[in-house]
Amino acid sequence: MIKYPNGSNYTSKEKSKKKTHRHLVSASNRGMLFEDAINKSNEFYIERDVAVITKRPTPINVVKVDYTKGAKIINAYFEKQSTTDYNGVYKGHYLDFEAKSTKIKTSFPLNNITSHQIKHLERVIRHHGIAFFLIEFASLHEVYYLDAQYVIDYYRHEKRKSIPLADIKKYGHLIKRRFCPIYHYLEIVDQYLK
Amino acid sequence: MIKYPNGSNYTSKEKSKKKTHRHLVSASNRGMLFEDAINKSNEFYIERDVAVITKRPTPINVVKVDYTKGAKIINAYFEKQSTTDYNGVYKGHYLDFEAKSTKIKTSFPLNNITSHQIKHLERVIRHHGIAFFLIEFASLHEVYYLDAQYVIDYYRHEKRKSIPLADIKKYGHLIKRRFCPIYHYLEIVDQYLK
Repeated sequence: MIKYPNGSNYTSKEKSKKKTHRHLVSASNRGMLFEDAINKSNEFYIERDVAVITKRPTPINVVKVDYTKGAKIINAYFEKQSTTDYNGVYKGHYLDFEAKSTKIKTSFPLNNITSHQIKHLERVIRHHGIAFFLIEFASLHEVYYLDAQYVIDYYRHEKRKSIPLADIKKYGHLIKRRFCPIYHYLEIVDQYLK
Repeated sequence: MIKYPNGSNYTSKEKSKKKTHRHLVSASNRGMLFEDAINKSNEFYIERDVAVITKRPTPINVVKVDYTKGAKIINAYFEKQSTTDYNGVYKGHYLDFEAKSTKIKTSFPLNNITSHQIKHLERVIRHHGIAFFLIEFASLHEVYYLDAQYVIDYYRHEKRKSIPLADIKKYGHLIKRRFCPIYHYLEIVDQYLK
């Protein structure tokens, strides 16, 4: 599968941010592990015929291809994902979510999310899709499900540029790490469907 | 956006097939135009707030990245899409489809479709998503909506390795090319939702 330069969700612009936000996860270690855990959970869902949720491939801008070597790409750049990383179908419903990881112990910084992603999630909600975030607090080994509408409201209306963990505990749902699937986030989706 | 080596939906394996099937579309011209037309139609749907349907980026296997030049990819290969090219949400429903183009005038060759894509579409249908194909007969300038279940049944049970145009006319739906959106395929989806 695709190998990422040094992590999945960070674009070069966001990477430069990381220089001043060293508390953000270095995606080459825990961030990548979190993504792997989500991918494994999705594989489990597919194998057990529970849902079909897949990761969108990282968009790459291909500049030059060498056709003398069987279409070898020799010049290309990673592009920013203008939507979210995951979408799919569960019980007929459209699901759309973004998985993010932070090393901070007390809040989730909103500079992890792009305005394009917020707009995309707003559209998904308007068309009655189920939209959410899976947020890993890597240092705490805790993962939360947080409804996208809550994050959007925070992004649109709050002055604070990060969501306190206390609020995420209050308005989100802790997802305990287990064996199979590693993160059974569809249990939470079921609560919303009821 | 992503530039394809010489077209969108053809993998290198399928490309080698094309040498013996020269009637298949050279994707650098009409096949690419068809994909563009679908993308434009989807942009229209997003702008008019009708639906959120996006193209999955072409998966690329990145072998080597030069970090001294701002994460420039210097060795990579196009990979086969194991799902379909398009998915999204419309009126709360999950939509999933593949757009294919052929130069043949009398039938649609099933070697355009991979077994992975068939399995993916079978899963989508089991989970109550709406799954279909948009098939362009490039030489005829005709585009048809064909329910994925019909294609799956043909793929699974028929000895013939191509679906006759006459059957596509009978069991599918002609989508007339227009100005905006270029291919208004959601009109057909509406008929299925009724």
